Amino acid sequence: MQLSLNTITTKSWTLPQVIEACARHGIPGISPWRDVLQAAGVEAAARQIRDAGLTVTGLCRGGMFTQPNAIEDNRRAIAEAHAIGARCLVVLGGGLAPGSKDLPGARAMVRDGLATILPEARAAGVTLALEPLHPMTCADRSVLSTLGQALDLCDELGEGTGVALDVYHVWWDPDLARQIARAGQRIVAFHVCDWKVPTTDTVFDRGIPGEGVIDIPAIRRQVVAAGYSGGFAEVEVLSTRWWAHDPDDLVQQITKRHATAI
Amino acid sequence: MQLSLNTITTKSWTLPQVIEACARHGIPGISPWRDVLQAAGVEAAARQIRDAGLTVTGLCRGGMFTQPNAIEDNRRAIAEAHAIGARCLVVLGGGLAPGSKDLPGARAMVRDGLATILPEARAAGVTLALEPLHPMTCADRSVLSTLGQALDLCDELGEGTGVALDVYHVWWDPDLARQIARAGQRIVAFHVCDWKVPTTDTVFDRGIPGEGVIDIPAIRRQVVAAGYSGGFAEVEVLSTRWWAHDPDDLVQQITKRHATAI
Repeated sequence: MQLSLNTITTKSWTLPQVIEACARHGIPGISPWRDVLQAAGVEAAARQIRDAGLTVTGLCRGGMFTQPNAIEDNRRAIAEAHAIGARCLVVLGGGLAPGSKDLPGARAMVRDGLATILPEARAAGVTLALEPLHPMTCADRSVLSTLGQALDLCDELGEGTGVALDVYHVWWDPDLARQIARAGQRIVAFHVCDWKVPTTDTVFDRGIPGEGVIDIPAIRRQVVAAGYSGGFAEVEVLSTRWWAHDPDDLVQQITKRHATAI
Repeated sequence: MQLSLNTITTKSWTLPQVIEACARHGIPGISPWRDVLQAAGVEAAARQIRDAGLTVTGLCRGGMFTQPNAIEDNRRAIAEAHAIGARCLVVLGGGLAPGSKDLPGARAMVRDGLATILPEARAAGVTLALEPLHPMTCADRSVLSTLGQALDLCDELGEGTGVALDVYHVWWDPDLARQIARAGQRIVAFHVCDWKVPTTDTVFDRGIPGEGVIDIPAIRRQVVAAGYSGGFAEVEVLSTRWWAHDPDDLVQQITKRHATAI
């Protein structure tokens, strides 16, 4: 697989800086978060990315359907994903609704929100990539917790939906191999990073590939065998530790681990 | 349901102190960890618990089959559970084997370890209660991650096995209601505490019932409807924050929340 660099990995950089780094390190893919995209200006960024010849493996992120104003925000996200030619809009569920303990209710809000925005996504040619998040984020980030649950939603919603598979979020799942095979070509994005032991924060303590205990090559092989033909492994590392490190050296370390740890 | 007090909740107390507190606060059940049981002397503790008229809802803990000397340690745990008349020995999987990324291999070690100790458990009349732990503990504490996975093991191993259901570990599971119904009377222990937002530690930041976002009464109703007839909710709170609090006041707060939050 080829590498794609998710902009959150080098959080201190602007989007133009990430684009330049991709050229400098020979990385052919990029996946921006919306804040850096908006800061750079969507049209200008789209032009720069095109001129650099980068594949946009995804736009992070839409969804968060349990939060206020989610639908309007997702409409903007779909337009942005279309503008930069992203292969998909990565969609998170959102956590429990504010002040609520109603988990089934929150999950229904995710399904209803997806159904609401799907016609616009289809019209824009933007695939909604449902990304299950690790269960430790269920309360505050995503009630969409397993690949099986995401695929049930894809089954229900149909054309224009797929899944974003991040090894960090799913590696522990006893049902993973079966669900990857079930997913098949609906896997539209493949994200990599690593699970450190110990993990000291539920969100911002990821490792770069090879730094933790996830057997990433084994999952990559299953994903390819299932029919993922995207050809990219997107490196998305949320880490206060790495964010304090020199970003150019970080990117170099990631490219070095490309052959051995992914 | 009646309350049972797991000794880890009041970590600074000896087992005799916990037994006295149960009498003082009108709590009819107890569940010791093995370290406090051994410190008190198993035979002396068994006598004190019997004299106090307490139901022993479980002994924590056996398992950890991916660690060295697990089988010998589980044999001692079975003998201890028998000696104190525990309804079950709570069994954890154990994390990945030291230095290994082989998750399927670790899970096979759990199955094989259970099969090895099961004849002794049956002979001693000690039910092995497989407790799935939250997926965030998969690497270092338990590769047994979901209720469905635990029930698959029960199906395979048969008589003498059951499950310990802790709301903290399973509340996020999209498949929970279905798996609780499937479990039926194989639920031999029901543990309660709460998921705080934010959660600042993957092991030691639990809340007491009502302090977090888990809809504990909804899960309790499902557990009872499935056939759990144990009649006890065991309060097991691992929390550096609560461990720094006056234990007697903590127990009082728990008894107050009994009617409203469990």
